[in-house]
Amino acid sequence: MSNNTEDTEQIKKIKAGDVRTASRLIRNLEDELPEAKTTLKRIFLHTGKAHVVGITGSPGAGKSTLVDAMISAFRKKEKTVGVLAVDPTSPFTGGAILGDRIRMQRHAEDAGVFVRSLATRGALGGLSKAVGDAVHVLDVMGKDMILIETVGTGQQEVEIINHSHTVIVVLVPGMGDEIQAIKAGIMEIADIFVINKADRDGSNQLANELMSMLNMAPAFPGGWRPPVIKIGSCFEPQTFNQSVDELATAIADHYRCLEETGLLGDRMKRKAMVEIGEALRDAILTPVLREMTESGEMDAIAERILKRESDPYTIAEEVAGRYLK
Amino acid sequence: MSNNTEDTEQIKKIKAGDVRTASRLIRNLEDELPEAKTTLKRIFLHTGKAHVVGITGSPGAGKSTLVDAMISAFRKKEKTVGVLAVDPTSPFTGGAILGDRIRMQRHAEDAGVFVRSLATRGALGGLSKAVGDAVHVLDVMGKDMILIETVGTGQQEVEIINHSHTVIVVLVPGMGDEIQAIKAGIMEIADIFVINKADRDGSNQLANELMSMLNMAPAFPGGWRPPVIKIGSCFEPQTFNQSVDELATAIADHYRCLEETGLLGDRMKRKAMVEIGEALRDAILTPVLREMTESGEMDAIAERILKRESDPYTIAEEVAGRYLK
Repeated sequence: MSNNTEDTEQIKKIKAGDVRTASRLIRNLEDELPEAKTTLKRIFLHTGKAHVVGITGSPGAGKSTLVDAMISAFRKKEKTVGVLAVDPTSPFTGGAILGDRIRMQRHAEDAGVFVRSLATRGALGGLSKAVGDAVHVLDVMGKDMILIETVGTGQQEVEIINHSHTVIVVLVPGMGDEIQAIKAGIMEIADIFVINKADRDGSNQLANELMSMLNMAPAFPGGWRPPVIKIGSCFEPQTFNQSVDELATAIADHYRCLEETGLLGDRMKRKAMVEIGEALRDAILTPVLREMTESGEMDAIAERILKRESDPYTIAEEVAGRYLK
Repeated sequence: MSNNTEDTEQIKKIKAGDVRTASRLIRNLEDELPEAKTTLKRIFLHTGKAHVVGITGSPGAGKSTLVDAMISAFRKKEKTVGVLAVDPTSPFTGGAILGDRIRMQRHAEDAGVFVRSLATRGALGGLSKAVGDAVHVLDVMGKDMILIETVGTGQQEVEIINHSHTVIVVLVPGMGDEIQAIKAGIMEIADIFVINKADRDGSNQLANELMSMLNMAPAFPGGWRPPVIKIGSCFEPQTFNQSVDELATAIADHYRCLEETGLLGDRMKRKAMVEIGEALRDAILTPVLREMTESGEMDAIAERILKRESDPYTIAEEVAGRYLK
């Protein structure tokens, strides 16, 4: 029997930053192989060192280009970087895969950068769990910064973002949904606002709207007032790179603020709660669903419901009575 | 004890189309009141008559305006209409609430129209369940057509859309994500494509892309080739209304095709499977999470995880062992 406190070859390789071993583990975690979960339990105890940054915004907000530039900015500061490009199974975004390839090519030679795309496959709520798992792998690889890029609509994406310590919300002028975004309580999740494509019309107006919204906030936890950073066209490299550096500095400042005010603990706890919820769903609900599907019971139930012989709620209570103590 | 086969006053009122009683039931279902669930079980056996149409597309695709026009088009055909405007808790869409008010005003005097906004509150995955529940209430109210409008990103929204018989995907020219949308397998969910704001540049190109994509499809189930319907600016009322009528006809044609080919059963089954999954989560996972939260165990677990004394996966397995037979 292997000694529980000693690292396996696999874990040693991941700690040494081996890309192939890490990629394989992430893939095996997505495929829910039992031995991958055993590894995850072991590496979990070594995690918690990386600064995890979530980047969210509407499709078309230019997040991929921004993340690409952020990689370079962090590399200049000699930080190693892991990127998780999240693509919810969505008819409206196929961007992650494409973006991944582009970024991969540009940073492919750099051992300090590791980029992975994650897309939903299979189980309900599986994507946020897959992100959480992959964050741990990148953390154990020793990445200083882990960037999670996702499209920001829906509860699932909020869960994904809740795996981070710092949340960046990317807006672009003239998308028409800015004011609504403000009303919909974007304040609560954003630590930093980026106005991307700020060379476009409406950029000042959007900045002013954000500012007056921030002015109306009753208080900022830890005294952190989310900065609004304008980033212009990437075809103007000098100003573009300057603004991205400014963003990288704001990210570092935010982390320092979290540490100094003790708020880091709250963020860590939020992350832990998300992970517990996902692990519980996986341990309690998933096996029941799997057994019911494999035994053919699920199909039989669907038939009864289609014939209106019973309703889903009564049946679910019966099933719960059978499975729950 | 009440006779189980006889309708309660509440159900009688809902069957008679009483808006206040129906609204209260939908709200009580969202709030998970036990008596609301009892009512839902009873009305479920009367459901399955309405034609449920899902409308999805990116934020800013003009879905709300389109749905508003569709209401009028169906009313001209003497169909009663229920609308569920779904707003996932999203930083990027606050549209449902606003749109709801606008539509409400316009159709407020029409007893044949019932509009409700639904927004996530509380439990994980709760929104799709809330939509499913509300669809049943509208169905029992006797609405011929039930329109579900949602923002189309993420697995949760796909689940919402899976409550429908007919799925409409709304695209607009020049949003930049069309080709990616096509690649990302939009084919599989769309029964009808709408190119909205078709007076804009790029509308023909988008139509051509969709057409060549459809030409490459190996087969169309039931022989239904999804039509591509262009809808121009609503400021050109005559052509706008004509195209919306065309859309309403396509929706009716699609339902007839489902009926004639027997595919309606498949759609009904898909709907039933989604509802069973949601009911099972609600009956099995939700009570465990609630008990753990109320007893303070959840907080204690979070502390242990934060201190890296254990990992979420091991703890979840322990919890599962305690709750599952």
